[in-house]
Order: sequence, then C-alpha cells, then structure tokens
Amino acid sequence: KDRGIDIKGYTWCDDPLEMVALDVDGVVELIGGSDGVALALARKTLTAGKDFITANKALLAVHGAELAELAQANKAGLVYEAAVAGAVPIIKVMQQSLAGNRVQKLGGILNGTCNYILSAMESTGAAYADVLKEAQDLGYAEADPTTDVGGFDAAHKLTLLAALAFGTRPDYSALEVSGIDGISDRALTYAGKLGYRIRLIGLAQPGLPPRVEPMAVPTHSQLGQTIGSHNAVLVMADQAQSIFLKGPGAGRAETASAVAGDIIDLARRLAASPFWASSSHVVAAAEEQEARLCLLTVKDEPGVMAHLTQTLASNGVSVDQLLQPGGRDGQSDLVFTTHPMVRSTLHMTLERLAKDPAILGAIESYRLERFGA
Amino acid sequence: KDRGIDIKGYTWCDDPLEMVALDVDGVVELIGGSDGVALALARKTLTAGKDFITANKALLAVHGAELAELAQANKAGLVYEAAVAGAVPIIKVMQQSLAGNRVQKLGGILNGTCNYILSAMESTGAAYADVLKEAQDLGYAEADPTTDVGGFDAAHKLTLLAALAFGTRPDYSALEVSGIDGISDRALTYAGKLGYRIRLIGLAQPGLPPRVEPMAVPTHSQLGQTIGSHNAVLVMADQAQSIFLKGPGAGRAETASAVAGDIIDLARRLAASPFWASSSHVVAAAEEQEARLCLLTVKDEPGVMAHLTQTLASNGVSVDQLLQPGGRDGQSDLVFTTHPMVRSTLHMTLERLAKDPAILGAIESYRLERFGA
Repeated sequence: KDRGIDIKGYTWCDDPLEMVALDVDGVVELIGGSDGVALALARKTLTAGKDFITANKALLAVHGAELAELAQANKAGLVYEAAVAGAVPIIKVMQQSLAGNRVQKLGGILNGTCNYILSAMESTGAAYADVLKEAQDLGYAEADPTTDVGGFDAAHKLTLLAALAFGTRPDYSALEVSGIDGISDRALTYAGKLGYRIRLIGLAQPGLPPRVEPMAVPTHSQLGQTIGSHNAVLVMADQAQSIFLKGPGAGRAETASAVAGDIIDLARRLAASPFWASSSHVVAAAEEQEARLCLLTVKDEPGVMAHLTQTLASNGVSVDQLLQPGGRDGQSDLVFTTHPMVRSTLHMTLERLAKDPAILGAIESYRLERFGA
Repeated sequence: KDRGIDIKGYTWCDDPLEMVALDVDGVVELIGGSDGVALALARKTLTAGKDFITANKALLAVHGAELAELAQANKAGLVYEAAVAGAVPIIKVMQQSLAGNRVQKLGGILNGTCNYILSAMESTGAAYADVLKEAQDLGYAEADPTTDVGGFDAAHKLTLLAALAFGTRPDYSALEVSGIDGISDRALTYAGKLGYRIRLIGLAQPGLPPRVEPMAVPTHSQLGQTIGSHNAVLVMADQAQSIFLKGPGAGRAETASAVAGDIIDLARRLAASPFWASSSHVVAAAEEQEARLCLLTVKDEPGVMAHLTQTLASNGVSVDQLLQPGGRDGQSDLVFTTHPMVRSTLHMTLERLAKDPAILGAIESYRLERFGA
C-alpha cells in the first residue's frame, strides 16, 4: 500500500519475521490480530532479546502473560502504550503513576467507533443501523464492524487495564462482554430524559469479572460528556481519589505519539515491566450491587402500572425514577431506574418480568454507573 | 505537630539537613518555600548523590535549573510529580508520554483554592471577599491567601510545565501573573450569560511568555467543566492532538499518591531526567492574537452605545457577542466579547476606552480561551 512516503533508504522485508535478524534494537508491530504473524513476530523478537513495541491489544489480551515472561527471560522491553486509547497515556499511568494506590474502580470509553455511533444516535435520533451505515460510508466503521460494535475491541483493552489495575495476568477469557448492536434509538432518548447517556463502558472492579457493556451514565458526568470518537478513562483509587484522562481515540498521529513515547522510553531505559504479576484475577463470591435503567412496552390498560410496580416491589426492586411518555395504539413505553440491589436478583426479576403477559416484547436494560458523576 | 502516627521506630532529626547523612537512598521534602531549609536540603541531598523527591513547586520554579544540574552531576534522582496537580500525573506525561510531540498549547487549572472560590462565586452569586472569608473559615484558603489568589502558586506550577513542554530551563521570572482578587461577581454572572466561565488559567504557548491570569473559557469546555478544588490540564500537541487530565488537587492522600509513585519509579530505576534542556525559553517578536470578554459600566444616555461601538470599530476591535442587561440609576452595564486581534492593540484600545467620559469606573476584561472547547 503506497502511503506516499519515500522508503528507498530503508531495508524492505517481505516477511516481517526477517526484520528481527537485522541490526535493530527493537521491532514496532502495528499489524494487529491476536495470533498469526503478529504473535510469531512478538515471540521471535522477544526471544532474540530485542524490544517489542506494539499497538496490538488483541495480541496482549490473549498472549500478554506469555509474552511478558518471554520479555523478562530475555531482558527485552515489551511496551504497548498505543494499544489503549491512542495517545492518552493510560498504560504508563497504571504501571507507574498509580503504583502506590489500590484501584477501587476503573471505567473507560475505549472504543471510538462505538462512542461515535452512540453520540450520533443521541444527537440525530437516528436508528442504530442507519448510523452504522453512515459510519461505514465515512470510514469510521469497518465493513465487518463486529470487533468494534460487539465490544470485543474494548474488551481487549479492558483486559490490559484490569491486569494493570489489580496486578494480575491479562486474561481475556475472564471478561463478560456485550456490544451496542441491540441498542434502540428510543432507549437513548428516554435515558436522556432521565438525565443519562448510554455509553459502551469497560468496567473493572476488584473481585468482579471485568465487564464491557452499554451502561447508562449521568449526562453531566465525565464519561457522559465524552462524545464522538473520543476515548476516556476514569480511575478511582484509594490515594489518588480519581484520575480522569481523555483524548481522541487511536488515529494515525495519536498512535504515532504513543509509539514514539514508548521508543523514547526504551532509548532512555525508562520502560516499565509490561505487567506486574503472574497471579490470576480473583473473582469473589460476594454479591455485586447494581442499579439499572429499564425500558419496556406495556399494554395501555387500566391496572397495568399497578400490576407492574407491585411485581417489582414484591421482588425487592425499588424504583428510583419512572417515566411513562404516553400511550399510542393501545400500548405505552415505560422507562424506570432502580436503586442499587443485588445484581443477580435484579437480573432474575427482569427475566421473570419479561414473561409477564402485560409486557409486549423484550425488556431493554442498562447498568447505571454514577461513578465520577 | 502530632499527626497521630507512631514514629518510635524511626530516627528523628531535629534538623532536616541531618537526614542526608543517614543510611538513606533519598530524601522526601514536603516543607515548601523556594529558599531556606528546603533549598539547603535539596542541595545537600543531591550533592551527596542521593535522590530528592519533592512536592515543592516554588523551589523548582526558582532553582530548578541549578538543582537539575546538581542531580545530573551527582547521578541522583530529582522527581517532583507531587508538585503539580496532586495525583494527576502531568509531570510524567510531559516528560515521557508526549516526548515525541511538539506541544502547541498547554492550559491548566493549577490552583484548587482559586477554582474553589470562582466555582462558589458562580454557584452562589456571592462576592469575592465573602467567598474568600468562607473558604478561610473552612480551611480551604490560608489566612494570608496571597500565594494562591495572587496566582503565584499556579505560576510556580506553570513554570515547570512550560519548561517540560518546550524543553527549556524553568524560569519563573519570565511569567506574566495576575490573580483572581479583582474579579467582580457580576463579571461571573455576565460571562455565564454569554456562555463562559472565568477560571484562573495557566497558559503556555511556544514563543510567548507563560501566563497565569483569570480567563473566560466556554462553560461546556473541559476547563469550564472543572469545578470546585479540582485541577485539570489540557495539552494540545501536534501528534497526540489533545490530552486532558483531571483530578482532585493536592490533598494529603493525593500528594502521597504522587510521592509514592515517584519513590517506586526511583526504586525501579524508571525516573526521568527532571528537565530536558538548559536552554532558555525564546520569546518571539511575533504579535500575539487574543480575544477578550469585556465588562464596563456606561452612562445610560442616548447615543452612548453608538459612540462606544464606533470607538471600538475605529480602533479595529470587532465585537462578537454583546449584552446590555438593562440600565438603572442613569447607568448601565455592558458586556461584550471581541473577535481575536493583535493583543497589544486590543489592550491599548481598552486602556484608551477606560478614559472615555461615557464610561464610569474601570473596565474589567478577560482573555477568551476556547481551546479544547
């Protein structure tokens, strides 16, 4: 692919693996993919004791522990600031600046494509499919958008942040992931009326599985104010209290900024160890608390509201805000937020409620995250 | 001062300078002040080849170049993440993460006391003197608040950030500084009506003197959304585009977080050089552009508005927004914003205007900073 740059002065390798044998201190890998040539190149580079500089979140989310051990055994650098949030230096902040802290909670908007789509749905009222199509036409989304809109790209990044936050091995398989493709335009509208925006959030907490899913965050919170393709991370920690970082996502120049910073760190011998520990993330048995924003359609008949609120109450679900925008054609939308309660009970109640004959169609619901509000 | 901590297991030194001779790798200095015992301790520690970890912005703003040379000559570490914005890791971001960038502009809310006072004036409509008194009673402001409200503390911090941004020696004497003590409550109210908030901003740009002064920033910008005692820094750079960092200012735990991070960096041999270069900041002869928000009181007479707008126009000042909230007692407030123009011309025009007999009292005016909006 001709990028308009004169490369005559450089050695060209048809096979990337050949580069390792050249007279180089390290190799920069911007290929992508958790396996294949990227993995082979990482292994060969680190085994040769040379530095490996990468923007490849998938590779590290899946093989990070193995590659970190390889780097350590061969006294090679393994650096990856560009893998998460473009030029926003969240990797170094987690590795070094917050080293004296216990991280209590970390939440991030880690995928610019999803945030662009959600922001555009919000501001135009358009449906998901239409905005996605437009994003694809503009080159903001891939022809096959699954990696982005399915939450998998954000999950790769959250895997790395969770490992750094809690001093564990990166373990992609431990994550719970859902994407933005099921989000209705009316959910965004109603959330807005109650003071929330829906964002694809990567959330890491001690003792709980890291989770990527669309969540409702207060409109005026720092994450709610992150719009377009911007990325942002909010870290709550026992000493630093809260650190918020924000910037454009991974464009060409932003990735270059992060890669250059990493190379300069290596040259100055200032690169940190890639991960802190080889222990696994311990998932506690403790019951997680959760509040949710729920959206459903009910039959517009007398007594339906009383029936529903009674069902919620008898299952221990305490309603915080409630909005019934008005009925039409014998049916009515109903939006409500709950107070925090035991997560599993809340989810079970919503599943049971979905089978109630008074409810038409599925229930759409989103975790409420007020942190940093 | 009894802080409720058992120090029996530690060696107590009545004279801090004695600590250097103990069997220690480094000394943490949290005394403050640009001279006196802090300076003596820094010199003695670094000369002994031991690491000096400090939160002392005044010391480094004034003596940073000398101390950096001393550190280098004696192979000692000189680290100061805690000196600026508490636990927000802006020092390391400037030293390392943005090393591959040219910084185009840096703006920060660097003094929590000032931001607390301005936010409180904004939300309550109270006058500066009343809010300051309340802040002093609550312990948020010192009995002698000059260092904070005069802009000097922010200026010490901006000196360090400007040096890191442009690869120059810290040079406190090069800064232009004004504080928040002249700000009227009506200025905040009127600024709000035009979509701005007034913040004490430290602003660094290549080729221009770093400047600390109250500026008008868009209410919905990242700096405008920084309220209470929070600190925030926005860096615009050629590759990273924009990086925004925000967190609580320098409380006890936040300072501890930064100091701990620095100590851990030193232990891992990951501490960067304190400053990049020994060159001075070059101030260009180029004319700086500036837009301003201006507030004045005029005689409420026919023709006064025509006279004023004509005077502005004939001096090349192009008005953007204009608000005349309505007159009373034969006088009327007038608020306007200008389009950007040559700064010196704008200031000269405002000085000339202040002598116009149609204008009662002084003109209050603030630089408009839209960056990051």
